[in-house]
Amino acid sequence: MTDHRFLKACRGEPVDVTPVWMMRQAGRYLPQYMEVRRKTDFLGLCKTPELAAEVTVQPVDLLGVDAAILFSDILIPVEAMGMRLVFEAGDGPAFPEPIRSAGDVERLAHFDPTEETAFTLEAIRQTVRALDGRVPLIGFAGAPYTLAAYMVEGRTSKTWMQLKRLMAQEPAVARALFEKIAHVVADYLVAQIEAGCRAVQIFDSWGGELGPDAFERWSLPYVRHVVSEIKSRHPQVPVIYFGTCMSGLLDRLAETGADVIGLDWRIDLGEARDRLGPGVAVQGNMDPAVLLGSKEAITAEVERILAQNAGRPGHVFNLGHGIFPITDPENARHFVAEVHRLSA
Amino acid sequence: MTDHRFLKACRGEPVDVTPVWMMRQAGRYLPQYMEVRRKTDFLGLCKTPELAAEVTVQPVDLLGVDAAILFSDILIPVEAMGMRLVFEAGDGPAFPEPIRSAGDVERLAHFDPTEETAFTLEAIRQTVRALDGRVPLIGFAGAPYTLAAYMVEGRTSKTWMQLKRLMAQEPAVARALFEKIAHVVADYLVAQIEAGCRAVQIFDSWGGELGPDAFERWSLPYVRHVVSEIKSRHPQVPVIYFGTCMSGLLDRLAETGADVIGLDWRIDLGEARDRLGPGVAVQGNMDPAVLLGSKEAITAEVERILAQNAGRPGHVFNLGHGIFPITDPENARHFVAEVHRLSA
Repeated sequence: MTDHRFLKACRGEPVDVTPVWMMRQAGRYLPQYMEVRRKTDFLGLCKTPELAAEVTVQPVDLLGVDAAILFSDILIPVEAMGMRLVFEAGDGPAFPEPIRSAGDVERLAHFDPTEETAFTLEAIRQTVRALDGRVPLIGFAGAPYTLAAYMVEGRTSKTWMQLKRLMAQEPAVARALFEKIAHVVADYLVAQIEAGCRAVQIFDSWGGELGPDAFERWSLPYVRHVVSEIKSRHPQVPVIYFGTCMSGLLDRLAETGADVIGLDWRIDLGEARDRLGPGVAVQGNMDPAVLLGSKEAITAEVERILAQNAGRPGHVFNLGHGIFPITDPENARHFVAEVHRLSA
Repeated sequence: MTDHRFLKACRGEPVDVTPVWMMRQAGRYLPQYMEVRRKTDFLGLCKTPELAAEVTVQPVDLLGVDAAILFSDILIPVEAMGMRLVFEAGDGPAFPEPIRSAGDVERLAHFDPTEETAFTLEAIRQTVRALDGRVPLIGFAGAPYTLAAYMVEGRTSKTWMQLKRLMAQEPAVARALFEKIAHVVADYLVAQIEAGCRAVQIFDSWGGELGPDAFERWSLPYVRHVVSEIKSRHPQVPVIYFGTCMSGLLDRLAETGADVIGLDWRIDLGEARDRLGPGVAVQGNMDPAVLLGSKEAITAEVERILAQNAGRPGHVFNLGHGIFPITDPENARHFVAEVHRLSA
């Protein structure tokens, strides 16, 4: 399995066909997922290893993707740090007691992943058994900046004003928070690898809210810490770094130390590769909205993106963000098949 | 007033000091605004010319900005097209009956701005009188794509899935909608100019949700129509085009025909100018979060952005998005003064 095309592409090695998976591929667009989901709530699904493993494997069986990604949520380790996490129907996740002071940061616990998130590691082991070597399993975590955004704001936001206020007015508190999260995330990802993940993805969903200068100060050093911790212990495991609205940051992204940069759909893949330089692989970057259109439109877009990559090694095909819940699974299946067919 | 530094900078001409204004400068961070605002609700303020004029002029008096921008909302002309608009406390604007079909699009009215939005034009006339030649007044409207996003979705969204579904599955309906909006927006902006606005800004707040290819198909042609309609009737009036998360689209933005491209803070100003080319002025691009910090931090950031512009003509200083409501007005005043002092 070391030679699976997904891992090869992450390392920039030649592949038979371009590997492809989709962010949120284990999700609501699949009736088979909805069936499992009816047995419990969202957090319950994350925390029940056999159910999490079941939905993680579904897109491999149903769509033929080249990697599975663990069904979980980036806020799971934050809960393990001691913050009360609630998922309100329609409102998304919320922390009713957000971080606002040095004392709040101090109270956050550094936890042992094998204890507090044992369910995650067990889900990984069960998934790996179920996959039986067919494709590698990807683990993941949120980037420190993105987790801090939720922890300080308490919920999703358009402006992340509270976090930005903390950074501007109490930079020492913000730094202490980011450092604490970076240590937790590194340990959590290492534990995922040791439970069986063959690659990990760091989601910096809100890192693109930072300008280049602020990104260098407030996200990059903490991501670099996470990546270097992983690399020092598991140098062979590819690390993927993904964010949105980062087209103005591309020059800086190679500095994360990640093997693969995940791109959203807001830039031509060719332009992004030119600006990232040859030392790094890319993952992306079809707009998930394309999957709402016709099969012909999907095929045309796959062709366009492959043409932009122009045969360069180190391309993992993916969507530029999570698949929409209103997607027809048949279109998702067509997408995966077309990536394989057209890149052969 | 033709020679005001703001208008000169928009045209790429040399200026004594860099002109500066702030998006949402007439807004909640100002106690003087809150005092007026207590007399009515948000839409009431937009529709009462003497109150709208009063808050529009406030930042000129209080902060010394180089341009006023009409206090209004991009959804005003949509309401004039016949859609019921409600502002729910905390939830933002909503259209309870969103556009979902060809019939919905057909029912949208092409209105006469001097009738249906007479209050806007009267607010402009009163503002111009109150400004008395001190600084120019900027009019504005939403770009067709951005207005369509609200009209189809019914409210703000993270993914604009309903609009994207319409574009993917019923492209002819989407095109008819965008065309109709483009005609309305062009007429509305021309009417604002004829009432006294000396420049106009087109807000494409959600245009950055489109990839480069989709942007060329779904936003650019309609923006170009609006700009060319304005230019054919008022060639001397600068048009500013502003969007967020557009760092991957910069190569295409000059094609809008706009004189000035507004930049968010997600890219270095210098890099953005290099990629836009010399034929276009820029507006931006300080992160509004910087105004939450110390005066020293504000000064340093103004210096950094001016250094990136490197003395090139055609720079209007601004924030990269609207000023945060939690901003200390004294910091906003310091920001404006520092732009003038450091660019002298």
